Amino acid sequence: MENFSFYSPTFFEFGKDAENNAGSLVKRFGGSKVLIHYGGGSVVRSGLLDRVKASLKASNVQFVELGGVKPNPRSGLVYEGIELCKKENVDFILAVGGGSTIDSSKAIAAGVVYDGDFWDFYMGKTIEQALPVGTILTIAAAGSEGSPDSVITKEEGMFKRGASGDAIRPRFSILNPALTQTLPAYQTACGITDIMAHLYERYLTNSTEVEVTDRMIEALMLTLVHEGPRVIENPNNYEARANILWAGMMAHNNACGVGRSQDWNSHNIEHELSATYDCAHGAGLAVTMPAVFTYVMNHNVMRFAQVAVRVWGCQMDFEHPEVTAKAGIKCLQNFLIALGMPKNFAELGANEKDIPQLVNTLCYGDGRTGSISGFVTLNTDDCTNIYKLML
Amino acid sequence: MENFSFYSPTFFEFGKDAENNAGSLVKRFGGSKVLIHYGGGSVVRSGLLDRVKASLKASNVQFVELGGVKPNPRSGLVYEGIELCKKENVDFILAVGGGSTIDSSKAIAAGVVYDGDFWDFYMGKTIEQALPVGTILTIAAAGSEGSPDSVITKEEGMFKRGASGDAIRPRFSILNPALTQTLPAYQTACGITDIMAHLYERYLTNSTEVEVTDRMIEALMLTLVHEGPRVIENPNNYEARANILWAGMMAHNNACGVGRSQDWNSHNIEHELSATYDCAHGAGLAVTMPAVFTYVMNHNVMRFAQVAVRVWGCQMDFEHPEVTAKAGIKCLQNFLIALGMPKNFAELGANEKDIPQLVNTLCYGDGRTGSISGFVTLNTDDCTNIYKLML
Repeated sequence: MENFSFYSPTFFEFGKDAENNAGSLVKRFGGSKVLIHYGGGSVVRSGLLDRVKASLKASNVQFVELGGVKPNPRSGLVYEGIELCKKENVDFILAVGGGSTIDSSKAIAAGVVYDGDFWDFYMGKTIEQALPVGTILTIAAAGSEGSPDSVITKEEGMFKRGASGDAIRPRFSILNPALTQTLPAYQTACGITDIMAHLYERYLTNSTEVEVTDRMIEALMLTLVHEGPRVIENPNNYEARANILWAGMMAHNNACGVGRSQDWNSHNIEHELSATYDCAHGAGLAVTMPAVFTYVMNHNVMRFAQVAVRVWGCQMDFEHPEVTAKAGIKCLQNFLIALGMPKNFAELGANEKDIPQLVNTLCYGDGRTGSISGFVTLNTDDCTNIYKLML
Repeated sequence: MENFSFYSPTFFEFGKDAENNAGSLVKRFGGSKVLIHYGGGSVVRSGLLDRVKASLKASNVQFVELGGVKPNPRSGLVYEGIELCKKENVDFILAVGGGSTIDSSKAIAAGVVYDGDFWDFYMGKTIEQALPVGTILTIAAAGSEGSPDSVITKEEGMFKRGASGDAIRPRFSILNPALTQTLPAYQTACGITDIMAHLYERYLTNSTEVEVTDRMIEALMLTLVHEGPRVIENPNNYEARANILWAGMMAHNNACGVGRSQDWNSHNIEHELSATYDCAHGAGLAVTMPAVFTYVMNHNVMRFAQVAVRVWGCQMDFEHPEVTAKAGIKCLQNFLIALGMPKNFAELGANEKDIPQLVNTLCYGDGRTGSISGFVTLNTDDCTNIYKLML
């Protein structure tokens, strides 16, 4: 196990009607004038936005609002949010939505108190300070509700890049499983896929002797394997939604990723897909993961065999561990397909002819010099081969 | 799953030489004059205390010190610590040791800023505020390094009681697995048993549909099953120590206990043993758990069968689930015995003739009216029968 620091100071309020605590939580964490940031109409139509406003009013918290966050959130709206907050003297950002809304809120929070261009943080500058952020989560997926991370897409060139810092960790996050019940099956499945990816990206490590975090990751994977099909079968299954919601947070606050190297190649390879085709991040991951894992499997066959046995219930083939390893990858893909996820470029809406451009942006964008690194270092040939495995 | 709040804002610094960050962490969390609180000579002999002092000096942090904490920490030393802190204008308590030292430090921290008798908090009064506490952990066991809990024994009558509150949660905890390598095998085994108990106490729930926390608890149990024998065989196995150390924290910061009712009858039944005989808490638990679980097993046979299959590797007897449930309890006891733990009253140094007194204090002490409640409510006859199962 490697040395590490772990810090997860977010206060979580979990359960039915938890959003009615929004006002008191904003006050507890120092807010007096809030930007309510959200996405499309579902937050409005469901009445959630009205309940949040009522809760803020009951606590004498003032607010302004800014909707319009899209999946793969854009820098344009972030600039707009920053201007609005400055003009209105906002001192707290309240995200009402999913990972995109939370990520957009984190970017605004960092940008408001920074003299330069907020995009600097997404090009590697350290986030020293930010307005406090709170969240009311409506989809189990990104884990942004308990993480210090944010991913934003810059419109010019559709560059999708991440920033990270304790200053943008949510002060509180409100998790009501009932709010996720109205989510369509496809988006629900995308969320489960994203959570599964956050677990695999941590599972694929070059660190040794990490039994405790291996076991915790497997525990969360097993939860998804059990609860995923239940929630697709019955979207109103509160209990299945609740288990997935907590698993989604635990998968990404890094409690089970500490003390070990992590991968994140699947996320990087996928980011080019969702940035280029504007497909759902989870759908892109469903196509990406089996291809990446198949390609890198021989780097550590026993690790893939371990997850195959412990999570997917495969019998260990002690004479041919690679058979077990492969079977586990196939189980993962079958699981994702059964949830309704795409299995290849065609179903995703991606195009073979774009592969050279995808590889180029992937391996040379963001200051990279011809490769991406993680569980295995992948050069342009490797990345080309991986995209071809998705055809 | 039940509604819940979860808050674990402790900063963890984990790894080799982590104690050298003590000074900078005290400063980061607002301390300028520290009480270093510790137990016996091992902290002095090992040179740890000197390294901590050097780290504080390097950060220009002043300190006074108070040693002498004993297992099952006593109120007398707490009063002494409170007086010393007041006299010396201490603004930060740094615990260097195990759960007893940390619990004693938490009691002092709450007592210094309170006008009345600190024992009020252990009789149920809410802890509103406390001096900040930091810890340098030397044994994986109590989980006090990441919990809001403290247990103190009052000399008069040897009453052992707990208090809890976010104000006494450690601001930071330093976890260096190497510091636990010098721990004798018996104490190491006691620690593992205590962690196992923290997991079983959460596992035995009357809440339903708690897959995610079930799986996380099982993950930590599986870690102990794997790493426990390794560390007893080779006390210097840093990696095994590291896995147990993180499992011990995760077992008790309640990340895997949220949204479900918990038991704690084994802890309550054991507390009378360690308070009466001054035996190690873990040793008492090793004798207590199999007796309690055998006695209450029929309350939910499938829950005991589940842990038997998932953690202890028992084959499920689908025709006679109680056979599997019993086999799991036997596996737990065999595991603890193999670690070097006692299996009955005689090995623990307890005495059958004291059972009436133990039951009386247990069921009528601390404002109780003839029973203790948890997974199952146990009256005086039940508790008598459970103690008799330990003979």
